[in-house]
Amino acid sequence: MKILLPDTMPLDPTLPEGWEAAVVDARAEIPAAHHDADVLVVWGSSRAHLASAAEHLGNLRLVQSLAAGVEGILAAGFGEDVVVATGAGLHSPTVAEHALSLLLALVRRLPDALDAQERHEWSSELGGLQPLHPEGRLTTLLDANVLIWGFGEIGQRLAPMLQGLGAHVRGAARSAGERAGFEVIADADVLAALPDTDVLVNILPATEATTGIVGAEVLGALPDHAILINVGRGATVDQDALLAALQAGTLGAAGLDVTEPEPLPADHPLWDAPHLLLTPHGAGGRPVGADERIAANVRALVQGTEVLHASAR
Amino acid sequence: MKILLPDTMPLDPTLPEGWEAAVVDARAEIPAAHHDADVLVVWGSSRAHLASAAEHLGNLRLVQSLAAGVEGILAAGFGEDVVVATGAGLHSPTVAEHALSLLLALVRRLPDALDAQERHEWSSELGGLQPLHPEGRLTTLLDANVLIWGFGEIGQRLAPMLQGLGAHVRGAARSAGERAGFEVIADADVLAALPDTDVLVNILPATEATTGIVGAEVLGALPDHAILINVGRGATVDQDALLAALQAGTLGAAGLDVTEPEPLPADHPLWDAPHLLLTPHGAGGRPVGADERIAANVRALVQGTEVLHASAR
Repeated sequence: MKILLPDTMPLDPTLPEGWEAAVVDARAEIPAAHHDADVLVVWGSSRAHLASAAEHLGNLRLVQSLAAGVEGILAAGFGEDVVVATGAGLHSPTVAEHALSLLLALVRRLPDALDAQERHEWSSELGGLQPLHPEGRLTTLLDANVLIWGFGEIGQRLAPMLQGLGAHVRGAARSAGERAGFEVIADADVLAALPDTDVLVNILPATEATTGIVGAEVLGALPDHAILINVGRGATVDQDALLAALQAGTLGAAGLDVTEPEPLPADHPLWDAPHLLLTPHGAGGRPVGADERIAANVRALVQGTEVLHASAR
Repeated sequence: MKILLPDTMPLDPTLPEGWEAAVVDARAEIPAAHHDADVLVVWGSSRAHLASAAEHLGNLRLVQSLAAGVEGILAAGFGEDVVVATGAGLHSPTVAEHALSLLLALVRRLPDALDAQERHEWSSELGGLQPLHPEGRLTTLLDANVLIWGFGEIGQRLAPMLQGLGAHVRGAARSAGERAGFEVIADADVLAALPDTDVLVNILPATEATTGIVGAEVLGALPDHAILINVGRGATVDQDALLAALQAGTLGAAGLDVTEPEPLPADHPLWDAPHLLLTPHGAGGRPVGADERIAANVRALVQGTEVLHASAR
């Protein structure tokens, strides 16, 4: 039995007796010598790579992605009997860390500090005696109301950290209830909750229903001092509305790790939006626990048990 | 009985029966009408204010500072029977938050991201597929070894947050042991621990013993990728040695909220040090829980119980 590992990251999964692993060029077609593979691991793999796998790997039973989204794999034409497993969860620690970084940088006004530093200016606006909760500005997460829209693994990892910083944290998801010890409101109730929201963290997936969902109405319902973070998908934000809100000062600041499209074109007006901090989709991109996930799913395949995060086909 | 509150921040402590509060200009001498005060609260108060209090407040029994350091009050000439209480702990949540902000911004390379943003550049160095632990660079706190030197209230508040992000956290203090669930090594063992330290968080107080203690030897013992954070006192860092280490690339990055002197002169070379993020002593400066602390210490005075954080005279 054979598993093909991509050359795009170092991998060394523990495999069952009798299995061999081969590392293949993830940007090239699968060599004929490996057309007998049973499992294909996908990370940064090219369209040609996936297409040649779909065409030539006659024994293939599992495509294990290390990415959260598997749209490219599902579009590559694999047979219906091939299980496609997503890398859901492998990016939760890093994406949560990045979301916290963006948020804290904006709350603590680090972009302004860097500007002042460049001018060699010891800014009395940024230091010295300050009110804890100045009117019309969010300068600490202490007592801040945070709403995490899309309350999956990333959100549930982020929430206790924000709580540790003194914030009041709620999630929003399809159905209301309690998850991981946090109150979760229903998507339908988000709009009503926004006037009382200081920080909106968007971790929504890209679906038809979420396209542009963070638009003029949502942004308008937030207080003027509110901060928006997006570490989900760029398409969920109406960027024209975001730009307008930042320019009008009806949104305090925004931290985005994702845009639509990516890369963001050099002439896009979002680059120069006031109070915007933009990182180039760098929140995740480094799977944590990939070897363990691969090993677990190969074992599941061998034992006939349930493959983790198998994608609905 | 009378308590004088400074006009430098809104305060409204709950006082025992028979007490009255008066708000006074903290930058001016105490008006004669208030020379009968029993308690003086100090926040951003001028030297003249303190001197006039020491001279004229004949009934004074307690000076309650809202700052962590009370050197100025101790130097003002209050009688030996006047209790001087520090504001220790009132700044722990905000300073811990700021330390985390500086650290995460450097780990997640937000200053570089802002530079790329200014150039309208979707940097492939900052986003896309990345190794989790690239050689010679710290890009996540996951599995990072963090040493918090000066492990008081701020450090003990910061430590669990860093642990929640996946870091291995130890403290360093006068004596070894365990504090707040974290291993604490002795000051004397810090040097030996540094080669295995990815992040050194300096929260040391300024004393004769700590002056310039983070100098060439300490910085040289850290790995080249290490990050230094200082939210304690500027005098604890040998800034020439820090500048040299940053310029030579033998230190990965530094985040400072304090310098020596403050404000840092406009022509100081530290402003332009590579991989340095500098904020103008803005970590704290906004006491949290001041009303409760004042109320508790007035109560202690009335009841003859122990005043919280009374300073050794």
